[in-house]
Amino acid sequence: MGFVASTGPSAGPLSLSAMGSFTVGGRRLRVSGQPAQVVAVSRDLPEFVVDPNGTYRVEHAYVQYFIPAEPRHLPVVLLHGGGLTGSCWEGTPDGRAGWVEHFLRAGHPVYVVDNAERGRAGWWPLPGLPYEERPVLRSAEAAWETFRIGLPGGYDQLRPFPGCLFPVDHFDHLCSQVVPRWSTTTDLGVAAIEALLAKIGRCVVIAHSQGGGVAAHAAERDPDHVAALVLLEPHGLPTPPKAAPAGPTPQLIVAGDFIEQSTLYRHLRARWHTYLDDVRSLGARADFYDLPAMGHPGNSHMVMMDGNSDLVACLVQQWLVQATTQGEGKTPRHRE
Amino acid sequence: MGFVASTGPSAGPLSLSAMGSFTVGGRRLRVSGQPAQVVAVSRDLPEFVVDPNGTYRVEHAYVQYFIPAEPRHLPVVLLHGGGLTGSCWEGTPDGRAGWVEHFLRAGHPVYVVDNAERGRAGWWPLPGLPYEERPVLRSAEAAWETFRIGLPGGYDQLRPFPGCLFPVDHFDHLCSQVVPRWSTTTDLGVAAIEALLAKIGRCVVIAHSQGGGVAAHAAERDPDHVAALVLLEPHGLPTPPKAAPAGPTPQLIVAGDFIEQSTLYRHLRARWHTYLDDVRSLGARADFYDLPAMGHPGNSHMVMMDGNSDLVACLVQQWLVQATTQGEGKTPRHRE
Repeated sequence: MGFVASTGPSAGPLSLSAMGSFTVGGRRLRVSGQPAQVVAVSRDLPEFVVDPNGTYRVEHAYVQYFIPAEPRHLPVVLLHGGGLTGSCWEGTPDGRAGWVEHFLRAGHPVYVVDNAERGRAGWWPLPGLPYEERPVLRSAEAAWETFRIGLPGGYDQLRPFPGCLFPVDHFDHLCSQVVPRWSTTTDLGVAAIEALLAKIGRCVVIAHSQGGGVAAHAAERDPDHVAALVLLEPHGLPTPPKAAPAGPTPQLIVAGDFIEQSTLYRHLRARWHTYLDDVRSLGARADFYDLPAMGHPGNSHMVMMDGNSDLVACLVQQWLVQATTQGEGKTPRHRE
Repeated sequence: MGFVASTGPSAGPLSLSAMGSFTVGGRRLRVSGQPAQVVAVSRDLPEFVVDPNGTYRVEHAYVQYFIPAEPRHLPVVLLHGGGLTGSCWEGTPDGRAGWVEHFLRAGHPVYVVDNAERGRAGWWPLPGLPYEERPVLRSAEAAWETFRIGLPGGYDQLRPFPGCLFPVDHFDHLCSQVVPRWSTTTDLGVAAIEALLAKIGRCVVIAHSQGGGVAAHAAERDPDHVAALVLLEPHGLPTPPKAAPAGPTPQLIVAGDFIEQSTLYRHLRARWHTYLDDVRSLGARADFYDLPAMGHPGNSHMVMMDGNSDLVACLVQQWLVQATTQGEGKTPRHRE
């Protein structure tokens, strides 16, 4: 009956009350003064003269959602990092179940984002918006290094760090999930997530890498709707974090292995500790999960795809349930 | 508990044995001789010097799948049209359940495609591939006309054809699902669908508009794996269709309303009849569902989103079960 991912021997059926998708945020844009394009889209049709002038929807996020038949916990938003889309949460490169299914089975409604200007959210090919420049596409060699699978130059032989849990035999699958990115669209992404929070209400945001910075900025703008933030090796965090009107949000940063061997990640790790100290000084819970120090070595930057992805998901899920149910996981509101 | 689409009063839970995604087809591409780009991706990080030279995965399709707990029928592949992605099948603009859920509830494993160079399949921003030219993005005004919601010029007042079943109050939602398209990637799309057929095995392909031509060409290349083809107002069909080695595939074309009022669709309708006549002359079942003539007026080009989308899905589902179970829905193999 075709290709079916393993969900483990005893997973049993997954029961949903609803599934679907929507777009959220963004704006209407009117274009004028652009020259026409002549395009042949198929042999059945005469050439089209395409007039690019007119009205467009731009800068929205695309969001796919799944609601478990019996929700037991807050909704979870899964937000990808730079150069990836929501597909990174849907399964592992070696065909195991992804975090979408993990959090659904744990009883969370799950919202999976393609943020503004990537994936199913589309992008803007016409002149006149601030992401007009050619975007960057990450090569396999760059992904190997940036996703901390192994040392620079290790891609050619697929030679990972010793003990690396990323399924390197399927590294090409991860490469096929990479999409073009702009370095100028972060503010659009923050605005789209803010619109998502307003739409779905109180939730937990789990965000990866560049998405961590996007989520943290959005949470500062709408703290009432963010019950907790889980940041997987984030960057672009607020400097310093602000005490938001509703009180600061409990936050967890999760970090993998092999950080000592990367200048980039040593730099980011120092930043994570400063950020968490700042969050703590604002009166909020701020935790750091150093996975190897906790007895879980071997994680790359792609913790949701590594061989222990289910274990990391369990740790995150336990943290967020605790952080959002114990007195809201917050100390009393702290105002300057 | 957040945003939940209506699935009708008596839908009950949807039970899945698995869900996930994969990419399929495409190739590895090595780039050399390109100049470096300097990019700042976030405030935490120094500017990156991005070397675009290296290895990439290109021209694959992205496929999301859902397997019902108790599959009763063949897998269904849902293939979008030009300028759209798989999101078009996930729900209606006014928040009703989409065809993904409909066919899952009917007992089909469902595979939803973002074909090569769009959506979660990514696209190619560097020079050197045949889709280097600026792609076309469909304006709301063009979508209004091409998706046959109303006469040209009717977008400004949201004035649809009288009796049009498209949820025009949510037309902006459809506009936000539109993504850039190239007119030069059709062959890549056919190859990716051929790879998908080889991966998942025997299935029914339901394809919309430009995707109909892609599906029909892929089915000619791999007829063993295509039990039936459902083409929703297709274009780009094979001219003429070939008798494939395994015998021609039973095919259904579905057409909506208001075709008399569109030069484009009058042209295509003539083409549909010629094509079906050709398929029939090859010995295959070839049916035409003229929805208004069958007593179901009001459909736009976006039949999977119109107010009667569930009814059209039922008609299609009944046809495909019948066509794939009655003596394989084929007359004996016909060889030239």
